[in-house]
Amino acid sequence: MKALIYDGPGQKHLGQREAPRIVDVGDAIVRVTHTTICGTDLHILKGDVPSCSPDRILGHEGVGVVETVGAAVANFTPGDHVLISCITACGRCDYCRRGIYSHCTSGGWILGNAIDGTQAEYVRIPHADTSLYPIPSEADEEALVMLSDILPTGFECGVLNGRVAPGSSIAIVGAGPIGLAALLTAQFYSPAQIIMIDIDANRLEVAEQFGATRTIDSRTDDAVALVKALTGGQGVDTAIEAVGVPATFELCQDLVAPGGVIANIGVHGTKVDLHLERLWSHNITITTRLVDTATTPMLLKTVSSGKIDAQKLVTHRFTLDAVIEAYDVFGRAAETQALKVLITP
Amino acid sequence: MKALIYDGPGQKHLGQREAPRIVDVGDAIVRVTHTTICGTDLHILKGDVPSCSPDRILGHEGVGVVETVGAAVANFTPGDHVLISCITACGRCDYCRRGIYSHCTSGGWILGNAIDGTQAEYVRIPHADTSLYPIPSEADEEALVMLSDILPTGFECGVLNGRVAPGSSIAIVGAGPIGLAALLTAQFYSPAQIIMIDIDANRLEVAEQFGATRTIDSRTDDAVALVKALTGGQGVDTAIEAVGVPATFELCQDLVAPGGVIANIGVHGTKVDLHLERLWSHNITITTRLVDTATTPMLLKTVSSGKIDAQKLVTHRFTLDAVIEAYDVFGRAAETQALKVLITP
Repeated sequence: MKALIYDGPGQKHLGQREAPRIVDVGDAIVRVTHTTICGTDLHILKGDVPSCSPDRILGHEGVGVVETVGAAVANFTPGDHVLISCITACGRCDYCRRGIYSHCTSGGWILGNAIDGTQAEYVRIPHADTSLYPIPSEADEEALVMLSDILPTGFECGVLNGRVAPGSSIAIVGAGPIGLAALLTAQFYSPAQIIMIDIDANRLEVAEQFGATRTIDSRTDDAVALVKALTGGQGVDTAIEAVGVPATFELCQDLVAPGGVIANIGVHGTKVDLHLERLWSHNITITTRLVDTATTPMLLKTVSSGKIDAQKLVTHRFTLDAVIEAYDVFGRAAETQALKVLITP
Repeated sequence: MKALIYDGPGQKHLGQREAPRIVDVGDAIVRVTHTTICGTDLHILKGDVPSCSPDRILGHEGVGVVETVGAAVANFTPGDHVLISCITACGRCDYCRRGIYSHCTSGGWILGNAIDGTQAEYVRIPHADTSLYPIPSEADEEALVMLSDILPTGFECGVLNGRVAPGSSIAIVGAGPIGLAALLTAQFYSPAQIIMIDIDANRLEVAEQFGATRTIDSRTDDAVALVKALTGGQGVDTAIEAVGVPATFELCQDLVAPGGVIANIGVHGTKVDLHLERLWSHNITITTRLVDTATTPMLLKTVSSGKIDAQKLVTHRFTLDAVIEAYDVFGRAAETQALKVLITP
């Protein structure tokens, strides 16, 4: 089968690999119908993710059709259309039983990282019963690819951890796909203000179309002064960090009101300064989270029922044969205005 | 009247001042029967608290007897025995109505800081109805001084924010009065393990007497390795920072398990390093809080009913005439083994 293979920092190729086979009784083999590229795949290619070694097939998002299942799989049979979660969960360990699937002791984020991933014609999914979700027959399967990772990530790490509430004020720092996913799902809870901050005019325009009540270009405007002016001098109830660099995390510390939350989504490569000399008395909460995808079934209903239009995050489409070009377009998002690129084997 | 007066960084004296008078209709004048010294008073004397200017009477803890009340005071009359909260709360502003009394727009921590405090024969308490608490007639008034600040601080900022729960594991870094207050109040919730970490052998011995399940001297032992060994390699569910320096906050980052909480109590003078390059994916929560004293009435019942013995935090007793000596004993706690020093005008 064809697959996108990581060759070590800075290098990848579209190659031929043997199709995966059942290894464990809980496995399913899924024929991938749609997949996509994540910012995390770019991190891997930069060499930032030591758990991912060369020769790995990348990708942790996708939908597909079950091809074969192991003897212990109870929920799925060949022919079932399924959504693949970026998080593999055994459902049995202490962490899984507390709903912290991201820290499953035999799973977590392993797809396209510690085991071969979804940017291929076929993929092996361990713990299939608790790592795949059935797709309703009438669903738009392209849109559902957004449910493998970015929608639950924006929702769980940003909106739920950020305690977004009716009438509250939110600043989302970073209007990339993850920030936009937080923007879309924050609206479930009817906040009064969603202020979107970025340095890319196109993404801010998209954010406005997606429901931001205000956008701020932090290259040209003083984001802190503007946010304070918009919130009666207090700052926001929820600051969502959706970039992953020290400057944006520091900005969140300046935006959050006493009693508020900084919900970190960004994947950080270095330590950041935490200004406890000021914040120790500010009654704030800071949260971090690797998505648990605990809310995937709920989000599936919001997409299926049209509560959110996940499809609009997809800006480009490629076949698997053109996956190298897809990486190039996704990697130059500022020029290409790419959000999510859909790849169809 | 006699009062302990701050003269600017490093300087204080016991002097004579006019007794306070009613300024606002919501004020009460309280004759102080017992007060104490807080670590924060030492911070002021170091010049760390710019909101406190010279000539200020220090002190934000105490019990006493109401002497006079303003025309709008409804809950108290002269002769009432009262507990003075370290937090002054109007009960009417947005923050007060959300229970975040520490950020009251005309109060918060102002006693012995922005207005004259309790280390005197008399003190003026603004917003008396919502900043004083009636003392039950049979109560041990010495013990109740511990309820002005340190018990609610340990409980709200450490135990409640830290989500201490039955069967959970806790590490408390810092076995000073605040850490010990967290230790005492954590036991309301029956955690399985309370590991106390300090560099003072005497304080660790006290911690053992107060209910720590394990103590670690981090000068001689590897606290991280020991805590990991005690928690199945995971770390603790709750790490409570009760010191206020970068090293102890960093230690908490090494002690907390995925899914856990770092509850900061310490008053910090500088920024700290937050290791998001590791913690971004650890599903942790970090909280900061200036005590709201929202739980003071509840804690008063726990002390009155003997659920905790607050009295045992008092190690030394002085008259107000000897307040300079009291500061000296409290400031050299490592030598004098002082926890809280009680001062009786």
